[in-house]
Amino acid sequence: MRQCLNSIIFTIVISILLSCDSESQPTNNDVFPDQKQTYEWKLIMSWPKNTPGLGTTPEYFADLVEKMSSGRMRIRVFGAGELAGGLEIFDMVRQGVAEIGHSGAYYWQGKISGTPFFSTIPFGLTGQEMNAWLAFGGGNELWQEIYAPFNLYPVRGGNSGTQMFGWFRDPINSLEDLQGLKMRIPGLGGEVFRRAGGIPTTMAVGDVFTALQTGNLDATEFVGPYNDLATGYHTVAKYYYYPGWHEPGSTIELVFNKEKLDSLPQDLRAILLSAAEAMNQRLMDEYTALSNRALTTLVEEHGVLVRKLPDDVLQELRRLSEEVVTELGTSDTQTRRIYESYKDFQKDVENYHSISEEAYISARRLTK
Amino acid sequence: MRQCLNSIIFTIVISILLSCDSESQPTNNDVFPDQKQTYEWKLIMSWPKNTPGLGTTPEYFADLVEKMSSGRMRIRVFGAGELAGGLEIFDMVRQGVAEIGHSGAYYWQGKISGTPFFSTIPFGLTGQEMNAWLAFGGGNELWQEIYAPFNLYPVRGGNSGTQMFGWFRDPINSLEDLQGLKMRIPGLGGEVFRRAGGIPTTMAVGDVFTALQTGNLDATEFVGPYNDLATGYHTVAKYYYYPGWHEPGSTIELVFNKEKLDSLPQDLRAILLSAAEAMNQRLMDEYTALSNRALTTLVEEHGVLVRKLPDDVLQELRRLSEEVVTELGTSDTQTRRIYESYKDFQKDVENYHSISEEAYISARRLTK
Repeated sequence: MRQCLNSIIFTIVISILLSCDSESQPTNNDVFPDQKQTYEWKLIMSWPKNTPGLGTTPEYFADLVEKMSSGRMRIRVFGAGELAGGLEIFDMVRQGVAEIGHSGAYYWQGKISGTPFFSTIPFGLTGQEMNAWLAFGGGNELWQEIYAPFNLYPVRGGNSGTQMFGWFRDPINSLEDLQGLKMRIPGLGGEVFRRAGGIPTTMAVGDVFTALQTGNLDATEFVGPYNDLATGYHTVAKYYYYPGWHEPGSTIELVFNKEKLDSLPQDLRAILLSAAEAMNQRLMDEYTALSNRALTTLVEEHGVLVRKLPDDVLQELRRLSEEVVTELGTSDTQTRRIYESYKDFQKDVENYHSISEEAYISARRLTK
Repeated sequence: MRQCLNSIIFTIVISILLSCDSESQPTNNDVFPDQKQTYEWKLIMSWPKNTPGLGTTPEYFADLVEKMSSGRMRIRVFGAGELAGGLEIFDMVRQGVAEIGHSGAYYWQGKISGTPFFSTIPFGLTGQEMNAWLAFGGGNELWQEIYAPFNLYPVRGGNSGTQMFGWFRDPINSLEDLQGLKMRIPGLGGEVFRRAGGIPTTMAVGDVFTALQTGNLDATEFVGPYNDLATGYHTVAKYYYYPGWHEPGSTIELVFNKEKLDSLPQDLRAILLSAAEAMNQRLMDEYTALSNRALTTLVEEHGVLVRKLPDDVLQELRRLSEEVVTELGTSDTQTRRIYESYKDFQKDVENYHSISEEAYISARRLTK
């Protein structure tokens, strides 16, 4: 009863407020009209719910949004397969089955060929550099432009930092050792691997362990120690190779159904986008901070052999990467615009990092 | 008149709402009680208002907070000297003259000896690593603990990335060239410089240009190309040395008056802290993205000579840095706790970066 009374009075007040001259009551008009409505949104992910970092950061995001909006927006997070398959995020968010997705842009290369530039490129930008390109190098604008026709609005929602190359049953001592090697490695990295003589295969994550165990697969890439520890790959493939030239700093996308995002009150829209920025920062922090602990466990408790790819192998992979990326980057007008922007930025930022981060890190390495 | 009527009705409605059973109307009770109040806060900075990045990011922060709060919180930004001197931030925010400050923790070493660990340490963490320590390595908790007795609540509000060592009138070819050299370099870096044979001097920023010009000063550090371009130092000191071993990734602090922050409604508190995270991400992006353009201008239009410090000089500076940082880190119980946390984290993250970011960046450098 009291509840009903409140509703009636509330409705009357809102009507009066709405009829006000907007200049005489700017603050109240800004604040109140939107705030009677609450929103229950869904966020679907390309990974299982409890995946360290990847799967847990969206919960942080949802919590932040709920707090900032005083509960006006609540977001329920769904792991891969719960509401949609891990590779259905783009379509499901586009159609509004869920309002938000947490995924990787390179999964959608079949729909828009330029998407890998918004996740990661072999021998491309690191996480720090990628963030800079997106925010200040025109990356975000290009990304949002190419997703708009699909009723999607993408922003950055995390970065893995430089990944590992992956798990190998046998050591890689030369280019020779890549010949005929069967490795689960998708996307552009896979194409580079193929040109280097390997056999890239695609395979559901769930089948990788057995394939490695039986020798149907010689190697697999995944993420880095923080995520890899739980896979058990180290029990069937002892060699853990670095660096992750194929994923030097993978941006995780947070993608919104554009129509739904645009229909929100301005404050909630700002809250979602600001929470995404906080989430982006946090995920990279988490990988940076917690990877070494997982690495130490892998090495000390599981006897994993951490190995660097030989320089001549890296050089050849680099040469082939340029080939593959240039082909992609010149394949159509839209992709060329993205490629040019990315490439120019990389040249620029590599030049500056050669005297800042990069020079410093070398100096720190000097024998004391 | 209409305004007055609204106020009366509004007050009545709020009273009724407040008298509701909180379980029957959870959403409205969450939302409305706080929202009649608006806040006008002040943010004071240690830098002039239009300093690229440093001075402009707080405006971005203020704008974000205003949008997210639908104008319930408006923040006015003041440059150094407008409301308080650049080095008065700590005291002025503590006393509530302004509610928020944007500054650097190392400025307050005279008040709390461990503060440099929360901005930057010679041969310490990079920006990416520093962010990781703060968020996942216990850094934030220690920082907030040591500021609490001063009625302050600090969070990260940006990072400069690795800075330049600075501007020199003459080249540095050996340790010999540092002997008796007068350089404006404050803090721990200054102490290291002194032990290496130099003469660190403190001097108001406004006096540096003339001192360099007249030869009363041989060198000065500042930030990096993005900020240095406007100083004109390049017209009186042509040599621009890297890397910035003394400031490898300086965290900018956003410090709140704790009492005022704690007295806010929970949603506004969350909005401020989330906006700070977004701001932290953004400032580093800006430095990363825009420094090279400024560097190119310095080199191509102003004939600046960019030089790397010789390895033996860096090695000696590194040795002395360890000495200085260890002395600071063992000077009292509180500082020792911070030092141990920072040092352990650095060991950990350097180990992981040796196979991730660092190994990748070297691989990218390999001759193609």
